[in-house]
Amino acid sequence: MKIAVLGTGGVGRAIAGRFAELGHDITIGTRDPQRTRARTDSDGMGNPPYSVWAGEHDGVRLANYPEASAGADVVVNATSGSASLEVLAAAGADNLSGKVLLDIANPLDFTAGMPPTLFVKDTDSLGEQIQRAFPAARVVKSLNTLNANLMVRPDLLPEGSSVFVSGDDADAKALVTTLLTELGHTDVIDLGDLSTARGTEMLLPVWLRLMGALGTPMFNFKIVR
Amino acid sequence: MKIAVLGTGGVGRAIAGRFAELGHDITIGTRDPQRTRARTDSDGMGNPPYSVWAGEHDGVRLANYPEASAGADVVVNATSGSASLEVLAAAGADNLSGKVLLDIANPLDFTAGMPPTLFVKDTDSLGEQIQRAFPAARVVKSLNTLNANLMVRPDLLPEGSSVFVSGDDADAKALVTTLLTELGHTDVIDLGDLSTARGTEMLLPVWLRLMGALGTPMFNFKIVR
Repeated sequence: MKIAVLGTGGVGRAIAGRFAELGHDITIGTRDPQRTRARTDSDGMGNPPYSVWAGEHDGVRLANYPEASAGADVVVNATSGSASLEVLAAAGADNLSGKVLLDIANPLDFTAGMPPTLFVKDTDSLGEQIQRAFPAARVVKSLNTLNANLMVRPDLLPEGSSVFVSGDDADAKALVTTLLTELGHTDVIDLGDLSTARGTEMLLPVWLRLMGALGTPMFNFKIVR
Repeated sequence: MKIAVLGTGGVGRAIAGRFAELGHDITIGTRDPQRTRARTDSDGMGNPPYSVWAGEHDGVRLANYPEASAGADVVVNATSGSASLEVLAAAGADNLSGKVLLDIANPLDFTAGMPPTLFVKDTDSLGEQIQRAFPAARVVKSLNTLNANLMVRPDLLPEGSSVFVSGDDADAKALVTTLLTELGHTDVIDLGDLSTARGTEMLLPVWLRLMGALGTPMFNFKIVR
């Protein structure tokens, strides 16, 4: 499957690298590929320069947002929540039209320091904002409730755990569920329409406190029933 | 231990009944005991009249809010979130002073229909509102993340799951953790100070969607790590 991953940070790289390993045709989207390739410093999150990562991932292409999205069957929004609408606008509504848009971003607001708050919540969600801005895209919210390393390798945990899908398009959710299963997720819970993304985005505050209490991001929610 | 449970609804009854069964000295607090005993109809949630339940729980006393709280070592806020501050004020700040106040309520706002939203969130929580209103109480937020039947009998699920404690008083959290262990909870995670209750209260939106998707409230979060 042709997958565009928008975002060159740790989350985008984890998703892109793993899907490439699974045999998918991956293009990472960035604002300015030349500039992304030319960087020599680690990013703000401590990730090594893109060129270092790219050297270890030969099969993954880099393109600007519109080019990456144009040819894709699935577009993954792996940007920071505060940049998502702008990045998707740069990708172009036409390039997203009819596509499955897997939104894994969270609406984290770091402007008042740590822990971040949410810039949209409770009566709306980032997933819904994206769907309203790009009505012809088929938005599915998922994977925003766990660390990037576990998104793509849930088997790093000692037992199975749960992930969620929210979306208004049943076929798009089914396709995302297939991709999640390929990643190793064994319990994919369909929460319902895209408004249920309010629930999973509002998991972030307890996720952040759990990371503090447990001293690691290597944990996940399992819905025991 | 002498425990006052404020609230005669399903949650209060579940907590009171189980702690009584475990050998604690339980008084349920209500606004007007005579009126509570005189009710002959089921409540809005379908719970049978209090007198029916009381007939099956001989050892549990009923008193008004101040009387129930005055003699207690631990006061459990099992009222609806929207009524909590008013009920605790009726109990009386003096009767809460120095007490462990186990807050299991959620700030659910049903005024715009289902699913409810939260009337406080993200930058504040009901637990913190209660602590500010009753600064001499030792507030611990816990048990607000699962169904009443599972709060008191987590072994009804096929495997162990997690509960959380948030609070500013370490001794109060330790006492609550002991009570949770008596109830059968095997994984009590101390999230930190009371502001971490923002995280667990914000779990409610996904909890509500999960109940819809799974068709049952008999599930709980397990933190796999």
